Amino acid sequence: MSDFPKFVHIHEEGPREGIQIEVKQLTVQEKVKFIESLAETGLKQIDCVSFVNPKRVPSMADATEVAKAIKKKPGVRYTGLWLNQQGLERALELPLDVVGSIRVTASETFSKKNTNRSIEETLQEQRLWLNTYRENAIRLEWGYIMTAFGCSYEGEVPTSRVLEMGQHIVDLAAEYGQPLKGLYLADTVGFATPRDIEYRIGAVRERWPNFKVGLHLHDTRGTGMPNVYAALRMGVDQFDSSVAGLGGCPFAEHKGAAGNVCSEDIVFMCQEMGIETGIDLEALIECARSAERLFGHALPGKVMHAGSLARFRTSA
Amino acid sequence: MSDFPKFVHIHEEGPREGIQIEVKQLTVQEKVKFIESLAETGLKQIDCVSFVNPKRVPSMADATEVAKAIKKKPGVRYTGLWLNQQGLERALELPLDVVGSIRVTASETFSKKNTNRSIEETLQEQRLWLNTYRENAIRLEWGYIMTAFGCSYEGEVPTSRVLEMGQHIVDLAAEYGQPLKGLYLADTVGFATPRDIEYRIGAVRERWPNFKVGLHLHDTRGTGMPNVYAALRMGVDQFDSSVAGLGGCPFAEHKGAAGNVCSEDIVFMCQEMGIETGIDLEALIECARSAERLFGHALPGKVMHAGSLARFRTSA
Repeated sequence: MSDFPKFVHIHEEGPREGIQIEVKQLTVQEKVKFIESLAETGLKQIDCVSFVNPKRVPSMADATEVAKAIKKKPGVRYTGLWLNQQGLERALELPLDVVGSIRVTASETFSKKNTNRSIEETLQEQRLWLNTYRENAIRLEWGYIMTAFGCSYEGEVPTSRVLEMGQHIVDLAAEYGQPLKGLYLADTVGFATPRDIEYRIGAVRERWPNFKVGLHLHDTRGTGMPNVYAALRMGVDQFDSSVAGLGGCPFAEHKGAAGNVCSEDIVFMCQEMGIETGIDLEALIECARSAERLFGHALPGKVMHAGSLARFRTSA
Repeated sequence: MSDFPKFVHIHEEGPREGIQIEVKQLTVQEKVKFIESLAETGLKQIDCVSFVNPKRVPSMADATEVAKAIKKKPGVRYTGLWLNQQGLERALELPLDVVGSIRVTASETFSKKNTNRSIEETLQEQRLWLNTYRENAIRLEWGYIMTAFGCSYEGEVPTSRVLEMGQHIVDLAAEYGQPLKGLYLADTVGFATPRDIEYRIGAVRERWPNFKVGLHLHDTRGTGMPNVYAALRMGVDQFDSSVAGLGGCPFAEHKGAAGNVCSEDIVFMCQEMGIETGIDLEALIECARSAERLFGHALPGKVMHAGSLARFRTSA
């Protein structure tokens, strides 16, 4: 009835993107403990910090300390996000897993607001990164297209623009002789519906049949989980998500902010449909609950509040 | 790429099921105003009250006063819920739209806990209702199967049990010479995944190809909206839902409770995918926001916090 993948890979964004919007600042120790407990759940990639201007994102001022303090578990990648060459160089000095990526934004306005660069300037910037990857023997993995489903400044982002950005990424990778694993489409501002997911993934696959597609989704308007499901139907097996749905909570001081899709809700849905994730759902739910205690307010995850269905099975 | 319906019918459950779990009691006037504002959005059926024991559900103690006070808008049905003959008789005395239904529960334990009757006793009770419908020239519409996807006491509810309950309903309707519109499957406790939706709807359609299928869903574990989407793909055009996701909010004192799927989030997803609902999304969002003000705490609806995408289009 569909092309469901057998196994789904979750890239955990909670400690990085998830934390950025929170008002309460965690200590280095709290962050490290949170990251370490996530690594115990079976997650294989955890985004831990970002190397951005601490004036714009105060929660990441201690990125260096956090990156240095994590006790690493073998087989888990601890990643960081950079938006410019300076950030990449900071990442390289730290005991982090630096994963090669190309990052472009499909909306000119969003690109300028988020990274202070036009699309053209961003493409130039990527050449610096690609040089650095080459010098440091870092393998390129994914090309990311931000605002691939719409932009809160420009509104609609046409599919042709997404394909154009994809082509830039493909050309850059070819220019540096680096094979790409695939393209990540990011619904940065939560515009996508399942129909958009199907159309855009279809368009990307039509153009590049051998690429894998990954999705970075936000549940801004209630379509986050249907979007995951629509993508699963198409065999997508790679999602960015955030434990407890951290990353913007539509409550209290976070009103209107856009939460990432919730990691443990995705794991729950996958497990219940016979799709493996390699993740211990109960352990991940415990991490989600610890995030609520850490930040001191309710978070939007669902299964963390209701509990999984495991107890109905073990008691039977 | 699917069998999307052209038009989706929403049965609004907010004022009835939505309110039941809330701790704060609204005044008759507040309830009536809430119901009247919902009727202005284009909703064509609004469940307003239930006729249940006020000791068990204190928020419905004023059901009679509420039902009498609503200023009715032509073309809108104002319904109530009863669980026994006494409740049905109360409904008949009031200016409500009494819609004929048969209601059974697929789980024996849940049936006893919720209605104090075994399945066998429930089937007997339905005969009283069917007699009353006949005496009052009330047309039978839907057969409801509660806990059709699982039960929080018994765990799994097999598909064979759901079909068995469906057959009881079909037999009862035939016994009273009343044609059925179709079967409503209720995920009363939020167990369903999209795969379950597809399998169970498939099984019901295989047995009764001419029946319509309706869904009553709860977003207990994050699968509410994917379940709606999976059903839309199969052409389901009838959903119970609750404005603002009222009906159990996983926050504060409502921790762990099971919210209904959110009306305006469904309307948003439908509209964005080109499916009509006849509902003014902005007006419904306004109702959702008024519900937050009424109850004094955040509610789980998403699009009510982020806003629709209309503003990006009108400004373009």
